[in-house]
Amino acid sequence: MNRGLLLVISGPSGAGKGSVCDVYKKKHDDIWNSVSMTTRSPREGEVEGVSYFFSSIPEFKKKIENNEFLEYAEVYGNFYGTPKAEVEKKLAQGIDVILEIDIQGALNVQENTNEGIFIFILPPSMNELKKRIIGRGSETPESLLTRFTSAYNEINYVSKYNYAITNHTIEKAYCDLRSIVIAEKCRVTRVTNEILSLKEEDLNEFFD
Amino acid sequence: MNRGLLLVISGPSGAGKGSVCDVYKKKHDDIWNSVSMTTRSPREGEVEGVSYFFSSIPEFKKKIENNEFLEYAEVYGNFYGTPKAEVEKKLAQGIDVILEIDIQGALNVQENTNEGIFIFILPPSMNELKKRIIGRGSETPESLLTRFTSAYNEINYVSKYNYAITNHTIEKAYCDLRSIVIAEKCRVTRVTNEILSLKEEDLNEFFD
Repeated sequence: MNRGLLLVISGPSGAGKGSVCDVYKKKHDDIWNSVSMTTRSPREGEVEGVSYFFSSIPEFKKKIENNEFLEYAEVYGNFYGTPKAEVEKKLAQGIDVILEIDIQGALNVQENTNEGIFIFILPPSMNELKKRIIGRGSETPESLLTRFTSAYNEINYVSKYNYAITNHTIEKAYCDLRSIVIAEKCRVTRVTNEILSLKEEDLNEFFD
Repeated sequence: MNRGLLLVISGPSGAGKGSVCDVYKKKHDDIWNSVSMTTRSPREGEVEGVSYFFSSIPEFKKKIENNEFLEYAEVYGNFYGTPKAEVEKKLAQGIDVILEIDIQGALNVQENTNEGIFIFILPPSMNELKKRIIGRGSETPESLLTRFTSAYNEINYVSKYNYAITNHTIEKAYCDLRSIVIAEKCRVTRVTNEILSLKEEDLNEFFD
């Protein structure tokens, strides 16, 4: 059995990475959505092991010391991280793992593992990004400017990724993402098992 | 405009690379099928520039000297080669090029260019390969053994390729090939133009 793929997906807010990942997960329920661990309190309706793994701060810090995270960050006094063991277990079982994560997190994953397919979701244009963010309706002009400046700067990090998907439409972006998964499964470095089993067939058998 | 992709496709005889490429070309008539140059005489029905470019031996040798081939080989006194200029022209126009070629030819292409997506078509099993070759009906037991031994040895070269497609069915193999093309077009190293045009939009324009 071949190892699962670790898909690490980032993109500026408003590019639509959440929607693209959701469509993918809906169509392919055999992919495992990595669940983060956090030290913040559970909110109404959040389920342990589905929304997050909840943890105390000392417990979390212990795990940091033990190198148990693929990546982690502290945000306003709370910790958030991706537990390594869960991801490793799924990959070893041949299950693909999807990790929707911000850019800093993705760069940390790159440092902590030698696998991972890094995919960046781009908006079709900055003007379209503006429309999408305004469409959400909850932004003040100041927070809009902050978001745009941030998105604009984040796009520079695309060069750290393997693939960039321009999200013209969700359907097209999904198709690109699916193609990347299928193509990566065809990479010679990944299909060794299949090739070896082909070679194990004894040539002499053909002439029984 | 982004450069076209140079798809270099090989595989042992009987693996079905011809059929997979034919389906691809039928579905995507915007891909350009590289036409070889040869010094052998045209056969009945062969068309200059479609079947082959026909050339005299001195003319061909002159082109070898001028480094005008992506690859070439001499087979039973005749020369066969892939003219570099034609391929380069199409790639520069943003047109994908498909190059169905034997393994030695593909390895030569690797030496003569720093681009190219190298794809190896594998049979689903050696037994299936046997059935397919026997199905063609034109083989003696000796030539069958030669073919198998050759296919068996050729599979070792898969490690020189980027991708391996196992040809369980033509439809599945086509889908893999198409996915590789789509995925390669999403490679960050190839979408620079798109990203640059995104960055050219002036941030200040958003707040007109």
